[in-house]
Amino acid sequence: MVVVGETKARVLIIGGGFGGLETAKALADVPVSVTLVDRNNHHLFQPLLYQVASAGLSPADIAIPIRAVLSGQENVRVLMGEVTDVDLDQGEARFEDGGVLGFDYLVVAAGAQTNYFGNDHWGQHTVSLKTVEDAIEMRRRVLSAFEKAERETDQARRRRLLTFVVIGAGPTGVELAGAMAELSTRVLAGDYRNLSPDDCRVLLIEMADRVLTSMAPSLSESAQKDLEKLGVEVRLGQAVKSIEDSRVILPNEIIPTETVLWTAGVAPVGLAAKLGTPLKRGRLEVGSDCALPHHPRAFAVGDIALQMGEDGKPLPGVSPVAMQQGRYVASVIEGDLAGRKRAPFEFRDKGAMATIGRSRAVAEIGRLRFSGFFAWFLWLAVHLFYLVGFKNRVSVLLNWIWQYVVYRRGARLITKAWSRPAVPVTEDEAGRALHN
Amino acid sequence: MVVVGETKARVLIIGGGFGGLETAKALADVPVSVTLVDRNNHHLFQPLLYQVASAGLSPADIAIPIRAVLSGQENVRVLMGEVTDVDLDQGEARFEDGGVLGFDYLVVAAGAQTNYFGNDHWGQHTVSLKTVEDAIEMRRRVLSAFEKAERETDQARRRRLLTFVVIGAGPTGVELAGAMAELSTRVLAGDYRNLSPDDCRVLLIEMADRVLTSMAPSLSESAQKDLEKLGVEVRLGQAVKSIEDSRVILPNEIIPTETVLWTAGVAPVGLAAKLGTPLKRGRLEVGSDCALPHHPRAFAVGDIALQMGEDGKPLPGVSPVAMQQGRYVASVIEGDLAGRKRAPFEFRDKGAMATIGRSRAVAEIGRLRFSGFFAWFLWLAVHLFYLVGFKNRVSVLLNWIWQYVVYRRGARLITKAWSRPAVPVTEDEAGRALHN
Repeated sequence: MVVVGETKARVLIIGGGFGGLETAKALADVPVSVTLVDRNNHHLFQPLLYQVASAGLSPADIAIPIRAVLSGQENVRVLMGEVTDVDLDQGEARFEDGGVLGFDYLVVAAGAQTNYFGNDHWGQHTVSLKTVEDAIEMRRRVLSAFEKAERETDQARRRRLLTFVVIGAGPTGVELAGAMAELSTRVLAGDYRNLSPDDCRVLLIEMADRVLTSMAPSLSESAQKDLEKLGVEVRLGQAVKSIEDSRVILPNEIIPTETVLWTAGVAPVGLAAKLGTPLKRGRLEVGSDCALPHHPRAFAVGDIALQMGEDGKPLPGVSPVAMQQGRYVASVIEGDLAGRKRAPFEFRDKGAMATIGRSRAVAEIGRLRFSGFFAWFLWLAVHLFYLVGFKNRVSVLLNWIWQYVVYRRGARLITKAWSRPAVPVTEDEAGRALHN
Repeated sequence: MVVVGETKARVLIIGGGFGGLETAKALADVPVSVTLVDRNNHHLFQPLLYQVASAGLSPADIAIPIRAVLSGQENVRVLMGEVTDVDLDQGEARFEDGGVLGFDYLVVAAGAQTNYFGNDHWGQHTVSLKTVEDAIEMRRRVLSAFEKAERETDQARRRRLLTFVVIGAGPTGVELAGAMAELSTRVLAGDYRNLSPDDCRVLLIEMADRVLTSMAPSLSESAQKDLEKLGVEVRLGQAVKSIEDSRVILPNEIIPTETVLWTAGVAPVGLAAKLGTPLKRGRLEVGSDCALPHHPRAFAVGDIALQMGEDGKPLPGVSPVAMQQGRYVASVIEGDLAGRKRAPFEFRDKGAMATIGRSRAVAEIGRLRFSGFFAWFLWLAVHLFYLVGFKNRVSVLLNWIWQYVVYRRGARLITKAWSRPAVPVTEDEAGRALHN
């Protein structure tokens, strides 16, 4: 129930990604009391995650504490935690620790996770790219493969260690494959005594008949050419049949590899199924006001929501949709409180872009299509602009300049999972060991 | 056996810390074939590790790939791996994967690990600070404690969550305690709605009767005053009796806390005990030429070695000792090959320093003693100078300027151990989920 007057309406936002964060910011001057909950303490700029995976940026360069972003906004509090269940009728959300939080308005912006299309065992042999932890793990596997190859005397295994397979040629896959090719042939090879750039292979596997299917065919072609110039072997029209311990099986080809990078698909997070409202393709169906059916004060935005565009097709799972939906939902809540009628959400498509290594990119803005250096420069500017936090912008820009000038990567760090220190030599010896 | 002429003498260096890296660099113009082995791919600048733990720097800012440092040096190859056993008589080292490498000269520079002085179960309730993984785990625990406290309604537990205990007041402990106090009272508190800086406690526990026992008493006093000004509660002459699930027990005091940071002691790594030569305080005894007894071509340098100084006391486990020993051993090997007699190692003590938060430090250089702003400035300059890698210097310097100006920390990132993605909602739904 919405209570106006003394007690402000309580808005609960689940998720601090693009959609959730934009909703919270757009509610700054609305007389509501906002709680934003996220499983992580940080907002992650996912479009640059592949640069963490390819050792170009540090995780903290593209992640910023959600509470730092919103610290100046008085009507928001941020909680780190996981909502495990929601009762839409009672207006209550349950947390992983058993705590319960009541709400008048709900905004579900919990995002997406990796999807293996029913082949979850493939997850045992691949690593995907949705979280900071994924990116660190991907970086660890890629850099470790080079380290192992340097020590390997068996030629077949060395070849396998230096074969990197990227599955899925959407923007993430294309950018990752380009970065991997640069890393293998230009950045790393010089540092190894036993490896030559020719030993390294990067393959990009796509089920469709072109890369970047969401963009114009001419740009797909341009992107493919740029990838091939970098040495990426592009395989189109290839549905993966199986991923096993040290090989990927395509319909007519077996690729021996020890590193499979998965960027092929996303599925909504588990919370979507717990709301009791209809799912379509696993996502929460919402109306033209982003509200869930029969629950006008519960909204879903971003990757977890499925909303139809004007062309009758679902809006894509990209950050501009999430951000615009977030701002729209904030305006709907403001309008509700002021007694205004809801106008339907309209997505303004500002275009799409993808970069392919150094100085190359493709971009589509309305009917304009660019490729080459200008598109790349545009890509840099747009990504810096949308990156949250002044310090992160400076840090990323300096890293990019440094990489451009000296052809190096600044975050070539292999980190493992933390474990307790091993027991010292003997207790007696340890007892007498020196103080630090 | 040293083979001269066609085949160059093979030098095996175990460890890429300060000692091992300096040895390798100093051998650049010596006609030997060097192999440097390290468990990690990076050289770590441990003196700044506490700034990673306190969210000021990213791990990659203070770590650099060993092979990148040495890539221009033709007579060195770098291997990532772990030496598990050494046969000094045969001149062979065994690796974790069963591989064997022969050597003519050996330099053991494998360093130290955390030491709980026979109370290894304390490790279950504490985190120490020797590796990048330790620092990330420490950061995770500290930042998570604030997040939990923000959600906690029980006053006693909230108080416990906001009590941080640092054990050991050597340079690392002093610097960490100062950084924790700044983080708690100035940086973080403003971002939390339910917490006030007054709720936070940082305690520094030391067994001896003063902090920084390796420095002059007047500097200990000055450092203690600076710590207390920052709000750190310094407890001297307190041997920890026990560390339990959520408390630290001192002789006359029980401190309820959920975060115990251990900087009290180090012990040599396990490899020391496998060489079959005498240990003293768990460290490898070496002669005045840094060689192991009866093995004139096997040396130990840095924290794993125990060498007596001119005053009859063991040289301290600090980086200047390791670096000077490393350069000395390289000159001994060069002299051996040229048929020169060995001159004994002489440690030139350049002094010691520690910083205590913003604008405060203590420094001792020969007979000169500084404290306050000038010592702090000196500390900054010296650390930047010794930090390896141009890019890391620029990055650290910019981070420091930013922290100084805006009172923020740039790497407030909670990262967990990587795990495979959860299984999607249902296979059926997942199968139909959208492509990225």
